[in-house]
Amino acid sequence: MVVRHPGIAFSITIRARYSNTIGMLGKITSAIGEVGGDTGAIDIVSSSRDEMIRDITANARDETHSDEIVEAVRALLGVEVVNVSDQVFLRHLGGKIEVQSKTPVTTRNDMSIVYTPGVARVSMAIHRDPDAAWNLTGKGNTVAVVTDGSAVLGLGDIGPSAAMPVMEGKALLFKEMAGVDAWPIGLDTKNVDEIVETVKHLSVGFGGINLEDISAPRCFEIEERLQAELDIPVFHDDQHGTAVVILAALLNALKIVDKPMADLKIVVAGVGAAGVATSKLLMTAGVRNIVGLDRQGVLHRERDYGGNVSKQWFADLTNPDNVKGTLEDAVAGADLFLGLSGPGVLSVDDVKRMAADPIVFALSNPDPEIWPEEAEGHVRVMATGRSDYPNQVNNALCFPGFFRGMLDVRAKGVNDAMKLAAAQAIASSISDEQINEEHIIPSIFDKAVVRRVADAVALAADETGMARRKPRVAGDDSEAMS
Amino acid sequence: MVVRHPGIAFSITIRARYSNTIGMLGKITSAIGEVGGDTGAIDIVSSSRDEMIRDITANARDETHSDEIVEAVRALLGVEVVNVSDQVFLRHLGGKIEVQSKTPVTTRNDMSIVYTPGVARVSMAIHRDPDAAWNLTGKGNTVAVVTDGSAVLGLGDIGPSAAMPVMEGKALLFKEMAGVDAWPIGLDTKNVDEIVETVKHLSVGFGGINLEDISAPRCFEIEERLQAELDIPVFHDDQHGTAVVILAALLNALKIVDKPMADLKIVVAGVGAAGVATSKLLMTAGVRNIVGLDRQGVLHRERDYGGNVSKQWFADLTNPDNVKGTLEDAVAGADLFLGLSGPGVLSVDDVKRMAADPIVFALSNPDPEIWPEEAEGHVRVMATGRSDYPNQVNNALCFPGFFRGMLDVRAKGVNDAMKLAAAQAIASSISDEQINEEHIIPSIFDKAVVRRVADAVALAADETGMARRKPRVAGDDSEAMS
Repeated sequence: MVVRHPGIAFSITIRARYSNTIGMLGKITSAIGEVGGDTGAIDIVSSSRDEMIRDITANARDETHSDEIVEAVRALLGVEVVNVSDQVFLRHLGGKIEVQSKTPVTTRNDMSIVYTPGVARVSMAIHRDPDAAWNLTGKGNTVAVVTDGSAVLGLGDIGPSAAMPVMEGKALLFKEMAGVDAWPIGLDTKNVDEIVETVKHLSVGFGGINLEDISAPRCFEIEERLQAELDIPVFHDDQHGTAVVILAALLNALKIVDKPMADLKIVVAGVGAAGVATSKLLMTAGVRNIVGLDRQGVLHRERDYGGNVSKQWFADLTNPDNVKGTLEDAVAGADLFLGLSGPGVLSVDDVKRMAADPIVFALSNPDPEIWPEEAEGHVRVMATGRSDYPNQVNNALCFPGFFRGMLDVRAKGVNDAMKLAAAQAIASSISDEQINEEHIIPSIFDKAVVRRVADAVALAADETGMARRKPRVAGDDSEAMS
Repeated sequence: MVVRHPGIAFSITIRARYSNTIGMLGKITSAIGEVGGDTGAIDIVSSSRDEMIRDITANARDETHSDEIVEAVRALLGVEVVNVSDQVFLRHLGGKIEVQSKTPVTTRNDMSIVYTPGVARVSMAIHRDPDAAWNLTGKGNTVAVVTDGSAVLGLGDIGPSAAMPVMEGKALLFKEMAGVDAWPIGLDTKNVDEIVETVKHLSVGFGGINLEDISAPRCFEIEERLQAELDIPVFHDDQHGTAVVILAALLNALKIVDKPMADLKIVVAGVGAAGVATSKLLMTAGVRNIVGLDRQGVLHRERDYGGNVSKQWFADLTNPDNVKGTLEDAVAGADLFLGLSGPGVLSVDDVKRMAADPIVFALSNPDPEIWPEEAEGHVRVMATGRSDYPNQVNNALCFPGFFRGMLDVRAKGVNDAMKLAAAQAIASSISDEQINEEHIIPSIFDKAVVRRVADAVALAADETGMARRKPRVAGDDSEAMS
């Protein structure tokens, strides 16, 4: 069992009042340290000869731990806790995104241009030529981030309202990383037909649909039906964003272990949205031997999947040797363990059973299938979904650039060529000389990666007939990007 | 027939190249003037000893007229028209609104706070207490501007995509005037059930729904059903925004002519969305005698309305004397002519048939039922929907403040008390001393009006049990407003 480190996600600021005598601050920070809190910024709020008030920020491991830290400070003789604020909640007050005007409206002339009567001519221009909407409205830069809240982060089915902070976060990343205007839309239905109809009806003003945190197997049907009905890209990020980044990480890991894609044996633990989409993309990229597992064990052709089409697909088209049994059976001789399941699923003994130079992507979040500390010495390359270990597999490496590229060419849809191109673009962001066991994935804050992904996706869309207009010439930065 | 003036809504910028000799600019501006163009800004693009390039901006009456102006310049000897740009279209390129982050994301710590893992705690807080969504997401400041594009401005049924520039304009006004974050949503269906279902499903993240440019009679049923199903306000602006501003204008006009509301005879030409809603609100405000007309003439109880419930309502509950016939019959002795119909519907002879001190609100746009120049001398108070005459009846006086007030108290719905309060707030923005025939309506750029309307609506919502939280104290400007 690995004890989690205190982190900014559980950061509190304690406002403490105490008599202004030497040594008091030391007592406070010591008290925080003794219960395992990680003291950060310390600010003076007010200071007089007699009294001192300070804001002391400390990271905790979880909410129980932050309570412990507050209690430890409160217990100190002569220290009064005036109040405690929570950094995460403070940053969420009133939401994380807003609408901004791109053109001022301060005079009657402005009104006449951006609203009536001038706007009527713009509307009529679109009425005459529907394609003009790409130029004369926000459509060409706008994405709907749509969820039903049924599979949010590791939280599960918390509903669309509770999912909104995540959707706003996504919209914020779209803007900050790729200049894309994304608007979050929560849907209060989990009915497949209703979701399809609703998104279809509201899609008019958007240049793309980012489906988000919709549970399997509904997500597969929803995406497929919407993409068939709409002439803009429909991209379920939990599936394809994850798949693209995993493929990118694998491409670089294979350079280290020097194995060809076609010879790999891959075990996929967890065959939900991400597991299925990733397996499909890996096969498209040349992988031939994938063995999938759900909670009941290995997916093979003799099991009954009760009409779950994605599991049936998995059983029919993967597992060429029709392996049966448990994870223990499956990992024997495996080159890659891909975990999209839950904490602690993979043991050190399991890893020892894998092939030489084993690669482990333990992507369960926040607690991985196996902690890097446990796997150390037994794996050649390891990746997690966490930011506090090397090689973080993070969708934010894919979706901003992926949609940027699709919007740049006004794509009509998404295909595998675009996903493979995105994965290659991410992987090749690290030069062969830079690649090592702890550096197979670039930083999410590297904007050059966003541009590389965008250009690669745009080019692939053009080459496969999915583009409405020609991609920009790579290296030309005249396209709008924040 | 009144000839329309050139306006900014048809403004072009001509880039002209000519030999740099004295008198050339004069020839160009004269040529523009001779065909009726109104020359505005003149900028130098480049100037050398031999050659001059200038950008010359001119307002035209319409698109044919702007072509004439360009031709007149092009015909000048020694002048080359390099290109012509259209100011209105330029301001619409790429759309008029964008998404803006309220919190930066430049470090891993930022990511951990606004996205995973920190956001999970915020989501769980909303999951535990759904009301927390008002604080912890954008819901409390966010409005959906929803249209099916079936009754856009004076353009009619141009569809949702062509309607988007108008919706973006509305969103822009929401933000600029009242700090409300509004997002435009075009729906590609005109089916009442589908619109109701779609808006219901997508309403989760919004604090209010602004229905826009949906044609009658569908708009009545859509609004009613949505308001019954949702616990946030649903407000069809074409109905109620118009009704509120008309009532405000009438309140002030009555101060001039010194007539009580209860004694008025009002003729309403046009019983679509605005005509029906305005008549209802006027009756709530104390009016007892309204006579409505559609294209077939006066609405009375013996006519057959083919199942049109709003016209049937009109015939049943207005026209107490059961007047029949045409507009000519209806206007006899009327105190107010309210035009929500089409150009030229009202003649000077009609006006002469009205009661003493007649009030004419000729709101058809862009061409009113009667032009102010024609009515002059025959009316006491006149208003139009145009910005180039006194007393412009403009919804922008109502909807920004109305939604601001509803969001401020997290209103559960809209009622008549709130509409009456808004009308009073707009009317009383002009003091009794300031009121005169040409000044019964305040300027849309007067932000004090927005705040007055917001406070009045919030108070009325609170008094009628529609508020989730107490209104701010009037005069306290601590509430968020741009």
